[in-house]
Amino acid sequence: MESYATKIKDVISLAQGTPSFFSDPIIRKEVIYLLLSNRVDQYSTVAGLFSLRKNISKLLEKRNMFYDSEDEIVITAGSMEGLSCTMLGLVKPGDEVIIPTPTYVAYERIVRMISAKPVFVRLEENNNWQLDIKKFEQHLTLKTKAIILCNPNNPTGSIYQEKVVYQLASLAKKNNMYLILDEVYDHFRFENKKSNHPCEEKKFKKNIIRIYSFSKDYALTGWRIGYLHSDESIIQKIIGPHENLINCAPVISQYAALAALKHPEIIDKNLLEYKKRRNIMGTALSKLKNFLSFSWPTGSYYFFPRIKGLKNSKKFCLDLLDKVELSVVPGIGFGMGGEGHIRLCFGKSEKEVDIGMKRLAEYFNKFYLNHH
Amino acid sequence: MESYATKIKDVISLAQGTPSFFSDPIIRKEVIYLLLSNRVDQYSTVAGLFSLRKNISKLLEKRNMFYDSEDEIVITAGSMEGLSCTMLGLVKPGDEVIIPTPTYVAYERIVRMISAKPVFVRLEENNNWQLDIKKFEQHLTLKTKAIILCNPNNPTGSIYQEKVVYQLASLAKKNNMYLILDEVYDHFRFENKKSNHPCEEKKFKKNIIRIYSFSKDYALTGWRIGYLHSDESIIQKIIGPHENLINCAPVISQYAALAALKHPEIIDKNLLEYKKRRNIMGTALSKLKNFLSFSWPTGSYYFFPRIKGLKNSKKFCLDLLDKVELSVVPGIGFGMGGEGHIRLCFGKSEKEVDIGMKRLAEYFNKFYLNHH
Repeated sequence: MESYATKIKDVISLAQGTPSFFSDPIIRKEVIYLLLSNRVDQYSTVAGLFSLRKNISKLLEKRNMFYDSEDEIVITAGSMEGLSCTMLGLVKPGDEVIIPTPTYVAYERIVRMISAKPVFVRLEENNNWQLDIKKFEQHLTLKTKAIILCNPNNPTGSIYQEKVVYQLASLAKKNNMYLILDEVYDHFRFENKKSNHPCEEKKFKKNIIRIYSFSKDYALTGWRIGYLHSDESIIQKIIGPHENLINCAPVISQYAALAALKHPEIIDKNLLEYKKRRNIMGTALSKLKNFLSFSWPTGSYYFFPRIKGLKNSKKFCLDLLDKVELSVVPGIGFGMGGEGHIRLCFGKSEKEVDIGMKRLAEYFNKFYLNHH
Repeated sequence: MESYATKIKDVISLAQGTPSFFSDPIIRKEVIYLLLSNRVDQYSTVAGLFSLRKNISKLLEKRNMFYDSEDEIVITAGSMEGLSCTMLGLVKPGDEVIIPTPTYVAYERIVRMISAKPVFVRLEENNNWQLDIKKFEQHLTLKTKAIILCNPNNPTGSIYQEKVVYQLASLAKKNNMYLILDEVYDHFRFENKKSNHPCEEKKFKKNIIRIYSFSKDYALTGWRIGYLHSDESIIQKIIGPHENLINCAPVISQYAALAALKHPEIIDKNLLEYKKRRNIMGTALSKLKNFLSFSWPTGSYYFFPRIKGLKNSKKFCLDLLDKVELSVVPGIGFGMGGEGHIRLCFGKSEKEVDIGMKRLAEYFNKFYLNHH
């Protein structure tokens, strides 16, 4: 969709989940200094720069998550590499991995890539995309090796209830499985709600792998940099695949991450902007209630409206692109649980979000009734 | 070995295959300019920057290798990612992959990581580490899916005969297999010998995947950047795993590679230095003929001497480190075919190579006879 869209003139894309921001001047300055000081040209250790791991360890400590910088944290080349080396290290061909639907599409692809079997559990659309733990349990078999959870969830914009995340951690522990927590949207939260995290509990340490990326928080998507943490015994299984995949994360990007960690105000600043855009998008969607229904996202930077009467989201999105030059992602792209929906990202600039939403309104008012 | 060695004071390491050089000022200038122009922060397309692929396509064309920049070249996060996505795309669990021994150790690790089976064929030590095609054929089974060849070879410093590489390509074609050519040391050649390459022949295009890295040629190891090329139909199988592993290669590194390609004189300049170091190392080894035998490397930047009477290369290397604070890699680290040898890298500075070789001489003259 995205590559098709780029061929159309004047298209507005609210499709790809890319921040509109650029890397902060503070990060750039630091990176340039280190480049000129001959610090970025050679390999780091496989697990990443020790100074970066140390900083991450301290950051986690503030959240009551205790992970040793020596052997419980791995710097990855973004969250994709983090996910891939985790799966390659922990899941064998034929194993089953439970994936909620709708969610980030790469999980299914990675599971299939390693010849394991994805098992899908539908999220509760009528309960704001929450997860029914009983449904999950029904899908467990002797072959279930892992559960992947994107939290906050892409594309639904929902945050899983604390209780449910703990239940999944318990389930993983009880059944000797892994709970893989992809938290790349961890800071994209739009309600001031404190919550606890199972990574705070020592008893879950050997069952949880938490994956993070600097891409969204610091607008560093092109840099390919993130990290993961787990118990030492689990990291030992993951670090081999990590070395095979990348040797070490790009060193210049590791230094960008190190600079980023010293300036969390960058996240706050960006988040303020995202809040404005969320408001623009949500307000515009509210005016289209004849055509769609939606919940305001509490996390991530996506709206995921259900289009009334929509059976084929892919066809809808192609038509939207043709008629009003607006690119969005069909819900089916996130698994069968997403059909009937479209995903709109408010990562783009205020102006783009505004124009995009006007085009969406134009489409519904001018073209939609005739077609469906 | 390397991590143990770094804990010893004053150690000289001729172990890790890292160039002593830093990235060229021309590359740095270009990268900084693009960083400040907001060009490196966002994702590139999955296959990499089109301008970079276009340049690579032209470069290959000059060598009579014809690969379409649109869909036959993929920019990878170094050769490790290139190898991993190639294997994930082409080799399934249970398939067999033929690997010469001794060679680069990561091949075996990657094959095992994807639950395939490595099948080892010993190189002919007495024929300057050449490859006996008949031996290869004996190891073919119905499950053989691929052959991996590092050429020039790490650790042996040998270049495979043109005839043999063509024979392997024919074998791959005839048996519907893949020949994966890892040519990261492609420019490290110490004899002015022109040779042909099977990638020049259209008939082999669907059977060969050629992998390259900017790491060694341009001293960009920390940047994690390389590329691979093959027929469009093969790239279609590889590009999915590539996307899963990394999404796209780090964009700042892609621009470093683009700058590098415009300045091949950097390779020539570095190569001149490596020639000097090769001379220092080889001359020093020649004086130790009571203790070892070796051939001068024709490619890569390694010497791989056989130590007379040596049964346990790992023990030898640990003792060498203890006695004279010199770190080298035990031959067994490159597979059973490497036992009895040690690998010395002349990527390090002239001074380090010089001191390292003095320590090696000291070790043999003072300590070796007592121990073995």
